[in-house]
Amino acid sequence: MSISKAALSRIPRYLNFLKSLPEDGPVNISSTMIAEKLGLNQVLVRKDIAIVGNGGKPKIGYNRAELIADIEHFLGYDHASDAVIVGAGNLGKALMAYGNFKKYGLNIVAAFDQNPKLIGSKIAGKYVYDIAKIEELCRKFKVRIGIIAVPAPEAQTVCNHLIDGGIRAIWNFAPINLYVPKKVVVKNEDMAASLAVLSKMLTESLQQYGED
Amino acid sequence: MSISKAALSRIPRYLNFLKSLPEDGPVNISSTMIAEKLGLNQVLVRKDIAIVGNGGKPKIGYNRAELIADIEHFLGYDHASDAVIVGAGNLGKALMAYGNFKKYGLNIVAAFDQNPKLIGSKIAGKYVYDIAKIEELCRKFKVRIGIIAVPAPEAQTVCNHLIDGGIRAIWNFAPINLYVPKKVVVKNEDMAASLAVLSKMLTESLQQYGED
Repeated sequence: MSISKAALSRIPRYLNFLKSLPEDGPVNISSTMIAEKLGLNQVLVRKDIAIVGNGGKPKIGYNRAELIADIEHFLGYDHASDAVIVGAGNLGKALMAYGNFKKYGLNIVAAFDQNPKLIGSKIAGKYVYDIAKIEELCRKFKVRIGIIAVPAPEAQTVCNHLIDGGIRAIWNFAPINLYVPKKVVVKNEDMAASLAVLSKMLTESLQQYGED
Repeated sequence: MSISKAALSRIPRYLNFLKSLPEDGPVNISSTMIAEKLGLNQVLVRKDIAIVGNGGKPKIGYNRAELIADIEHFLGYDHASDAVIVGAGNLGKALMAYGNFKKYGLNIVAAFDQNPKLIGSKIAGKYVYDIAKIEELCRKFKVRIGIIAVPAPEAQTVCNHLIDGGIRAIWNFAPINLYVPKKVVVKNEDMAASLAVLSKMLTESLQQYGED
């Protein structure tokens, strides 16, 4: 990977910020301005942007529209990738209802669940299929990305079916370590773990700085 | 902090796993078994559990019910903390609809939004208040945790109001670095950044291992 995960995580922030500026605002923007507004170090911002764009001009800065296009291309937002989601429970429904993924280059094309009451229904415009059809339909839809939103004990089985269906990237919301072949990539998202960290931080802050 | 963030992130997984076992299953469980099922190192598991529980007995393992109670107490799940959420757009709605936070010790008591169409309505059983009332109502509800689910350009202002209302822990879903006083803790959750990382990992894996 020619770019660090930390740098990569900052790139979408630059995009968000650039897009938040008024259409009729200044044509150019400086790295100083971006750094200040996002609470980041200016040198860091300049280095990050050098990876994705043409680097801007001294004393003028970056052309905003060009930089937006460069970042969108770099992140693949200009050609959304199709994905399927497995698990149409609370979390799955929430992810399907979240309308912003397309903006981030992810297009959820279908959902899978084992609940007969959900199979055949539509959630946020996406059809829910029988979980038994994961392999067949992933191949048919030619999707590469699978989102796992099932309870932990079922996640590995679901993961195996996705991989059998040709999935190469897994966004895992189940709180479990998945075993995958080397060619499959996994990004874990653990809400319970995040909450545990936040809650401990809060307890310690209240002890250290008092209740007020 | 007497426990590392990495260890802390694993604790909810143990709980999830322990609770996933059948009620009428074995009374005791070994660290070997837990490690195996979660794909973790056994020594690591034993060290983690020693922080939260009584450590178990040699050759017998941990009493499952006791360990569940110990972990729930450690994570604060046995006394849910109240929280408010600001932003009742797609992401905010999704978070409110996600029914599992209570299980994780987080109880969302109210939402705030600036959209007149949403103010006064109920989403997933939670009342949506005018964003102008953040400070007043946070103090009234005596909440300590605020969830930020507004667009990046509005996040800092919202954050300031929450802090003025006595909020001490912020779960931030806006893709921006927040400035907070030392006594306030922040946990950032950046979906776009996660997706960017996943998508780059996929591209590189397809290049390295081919399309099949």
